[in-house]
Amino acid sequence: MNYRVLLNYIGKVILVEGLVMIPALLIAFAKSQHNCIFAFGVTIGALIILGLGLSLIKPKNQEIKIREGFLIVAGCWILLSLFGALPFFLSREIPNYIDCIFETVSGFTTTGATILTNIEVMSSSLLYWRSFTHWLGGMGILVFFLAIMPKSKAGGSLFRLMKAESPGPEVGKLSSKIKNTARTLYIIYIVMTIIEIILLLCGGMPLFDSVTTSFGTAGTGGFAVKNDSIMGYNSYLQMVVGVFMVLFGINFNIYHLILLKDIVNVWKNQELRLYLGIIFASTLAIAVNISSQMGSFAKGLQHGFFQVSSIITTTGFASYNFDAWPMFSRCILVFLMFIGACAGSTGGGVKVARVIILLKSARNTLQKIRHPKSVKAVMIDKHRTEDTVISEVNAFMTVYCIIAIVSMLILSIDNFSFESTTTAVIACLNNVGPGLDMVGPVGSYSAFSWWGKIVLSADMLLGRLEIFPLIILFSPVTWSKNK
Amino acid sequence: MNYRVLLNYIGKVILVEGLVMIPALLIAFAKSQHNCIFAFGVTIGALIILGLGLSLIKPKNQEIKIREGFLIVAGCWILLSLFGALPFFLSREIPNYIDCIFETVSGFTTTGATILTNIEVMSSSLLYWRSFTHWLGGMGILVFFLAIMPKSKAGGSLFRLMKAESPGPEVGKLSSKIKNTARTLYIIYIVMTIIEIILLLCGGMPLFDSVTTSFGTAGTGGFAVKNDSIMGYNSYLQMVVGVFMVLFGINFNIYHLILLKDIVNVWKNQELRLYLGIIFASTLAIAVNISSQMGSFAKGLQHGFFQVSSIITTTGFASYNFDAWPMFSRCILVFLMFIGACAGSTGGGVKVARVIILLKSARNTLQKIRHPKSVKAVMIDKHRTEDTVISEVNAFMTVYCIIAIVSMLILSIDNFSFESTTTAVIACLNNVGPGLDMVGPVGSYSAFSWWGKIVLSADMLLGRLEIFPLIILFSPVTWSKNK
Repeated sequence: MNYRVLLNYIGKVILVEGLVMIPALLIAFAKSQHNCIFAFGVTIGALIILGLGLSLIKPKNQEIKIREGFLIVAGCWILLSLFGALPFFLSREIPNYIDCIFETVSGFTTTGATILTNIEVMSSSLLYWRSFTHWLGGMGILVFFLAIMPKSKAGGSLFRLMKAESPGPEVGKLSSKIKNTARTLYIIYIVMTIIEIILLLCGGMPLFDSVTTSFGTAGTGGFAVKNDSIMGYNSYLQMVVGVFMVLFGINFNIYHLILLKDIVNVWKNQELRLYLGIIFASTLAIAVNISSQMGSFAKGLQHGFFQVSSIITTTGFASYNFDAWPMFSRCILVFLMFIGACAGSTGGGVKVARVIILLKSARNTLQKIRHPKSVKAVMIDKHRTEDTVISEVNAFMTVYCIIAIVSMLILSIDNFSFESTTTAVIACLNNVGPGLDMVGPVGSYSAFSWWGKIVLSADMLLGRLEIFPLIILFSPVTWSKNK
Repeated sequence: MNYRVLLNYIGKVILVEGLVMIPALLIAFAKSQHNCIFAFGVTIGALIILGLGLSLIKPKNQEIKIREGFLIVAGCWILLSLFGALPFFLSREIPNYIDCIFETVSGFTTTGATILTNIEVMSSSLLYWRSFTHWLGGMGILVFFLAIMPKSKAGGSLFRLMKAESPGPEVGKLSSKIKNTARTLYIIYIVMTIIEIILLLCGGMPLFDSVTTSFGTAGTGGFAVKNDSIMGYNSYLQMVVGVFMVLFGINFNIYHLILLKDIVNVWKNQELRLYLGIIFASTLAIAVNISSQMGSFAKGLQHGFFQVSSIITTTGFASYNFDAWPMFSRCILVFLMFIGACAGSTGGGVKVARVIILLKSARNTLQKIRHPKSVKAVMIDKHRTEDTVISEVNAFMTVYCIIAIVSMLILSIDNFSFESTTTAVIACLNNVGPGLDMVGPVGSYSAFSWWGKIVLSADMLLGRLEIFPLIILFSPVTWSKNK
């Protein structure tokens, strides 16, 4: 194990966290939020000192093996969450540190599940930081670090870091240099976020709300600055958010293709087509189902689209209390939680790309049962999907189910309803945020026990990092025999 | 497609159904149940005439290809259910034919889900037939047919039939001749059923109850002849049933090994060890969880064991209304529904053998992510598991999830609770019977709409035949181009 490279990277990333926290400190100064000035000041100081200290450890060897890549990613995310939680705790606005961790993990992992029962009493600087964690966690803090790194070193090593942090079964390089890929991704991300902020401002949303809501949309997070999520904004604003959630749920390679004017390959992309198809079909089904309750088919369509977009992208904003809808609509939403957004987007869930691989490989196997001698590869976008990718996807699904089952069992000790218990785990593991019943869009996660909150926090991290990095971090084999 | 061999087999199996219905007719005579004499008489007559007619179609070619094997199995099970439902309908004791089909499918598939709200008003001849469908469906009617067939013909062809009907990822032959395998299985099955009947009689259970309860146990079905399942019997009787459920959930090859005095291989069997381990751990966890509610740890252990044994074997008998237990115990039971019994037993669910294959292949893939050059096969009982078996298991899980999701969506249109909707599908697809809430051990499936009952009936058949035969029956490719 190359411990030096591990500590060096973790130090640099902690340093970055300290720096990106500075705007929150400035807001605290501007609004004279003294408890927050103290909280952010102390945290930023600690992060910068620790970060500088660790980054002084110079590795003898820059190479990052696959295992170390996973470890750096898992370690960074856990430490970022523990430190990112400090401002909430030190400001005394969230008195329990476990709650602070839950809220921060929920932010970085772009889940958007909250333990706050009254959001509007929080200081604006904390709400800014809370929403900013979504934005940073969405595209990935290591990808961010790669994007701003001064000079690009060993490309293969860095690609492993990116691969470990980025969602989806396979990671495409946009450029031959990984640093350029990371930078392109972040430029697209920033531009899209700014466009959304402007469109929201045009619709009359206050600046603070526009920025934080756009952070929540861009990261597909779902933290709002209002207690009723975004139910209180007008239809135009809800539409803007609804459309941008769909956009941020698309694989960012698609935007790169659009920039390269390669529209043919955009349209041929099977994942994009299935993703949009699912959104269309689910919206229609829900609209029909809820139209009588909502007063008209148009209203049903509007809120149906918003909620489908919010849930499939695993954002979790609510334009309406969908927990009051008929069971059919609620079930559709629960299943969309599993599917999730496209690979290579900021969204969570299993990812449409994995669903395609599962479906195609199941179809192939069925054909083989009928005609045992047939040999057919799984083809996606006219490329052959490697057998290792297929077995990784299958292993992912197996471990995913085990994690879900174990989490539900532990959570069930709290003895809340079946609906609350199961959808809380589903909503956290897929980084959605709201579930049904007690954890529905007008509820919160505050009632769970401390161990329940720790399990759900672990689920959020497992979901965001797609399981494998954390398993490798915590499996004894990794640490034995000085490997 | 060899239609002649298909119709010939279906005819013979229908004939067998007519013959095994005769004892029910005799009971109806003995008890002077005139409506049942009429109902069974007409049905038996129709089955014998149709069966004889179809079996007159002599195939030019005895060979059964894999596809035809699946088709014969799927076709037989659907027709057996449609005909087996006639006595309930013709006797007018279940007025709705959809309900009759649901009840019969539930019987043959050994699910044990019922639409009856008052079981004790039914005629005893109908209750006998209802329980007997469990016994026949448990080991398989085609296996039964193979066992009683006069002379063994093409062994490979018949093995395909058995493979299509028997549960589990792989089917072991007990003997070089498939007919002998089928006969050995049924002899073990009959002997064990008789032992249970005797033990129940010794405990003071009436003969009729002993026979029907033993049918329900042997097939891991779960139809009882009392409204309160077997809650009303004494602890000894409940223990006998509890232990026999565990025994009928074990792979029958194990009994064959015991008969051959090959105890070493019995103990080395990984599936058996995991199965017993899960039962032990779940019983203990539930006992601790419910002991205060049940009055004592001993009571908790007794009912915990009974319910774990009943649910993991997918039988579905209840010694207590477990829907009133804390959420932790209820969640354990729901997850046991998925796992199910051992392959090659009469139980349903995913099967412990598949769980082992999924776990081991996921572990291998994880190792490969850590050490990309490692090459390791999935080993079970020191035998290498073929890659085709692994991909079949993965495909099975994918299709299984799709079926569960689609079924839940359709069922949710009925707008019952989330708990009722999801556990109804889980309980039917895994052939368990009772779920939670409305479909709990003291509830019934009567409130679902007719389309809901059809979907659940389809789920029961898909679960019992392990999906593939029915998919092949209903996929257009099978029937196109005169293949």
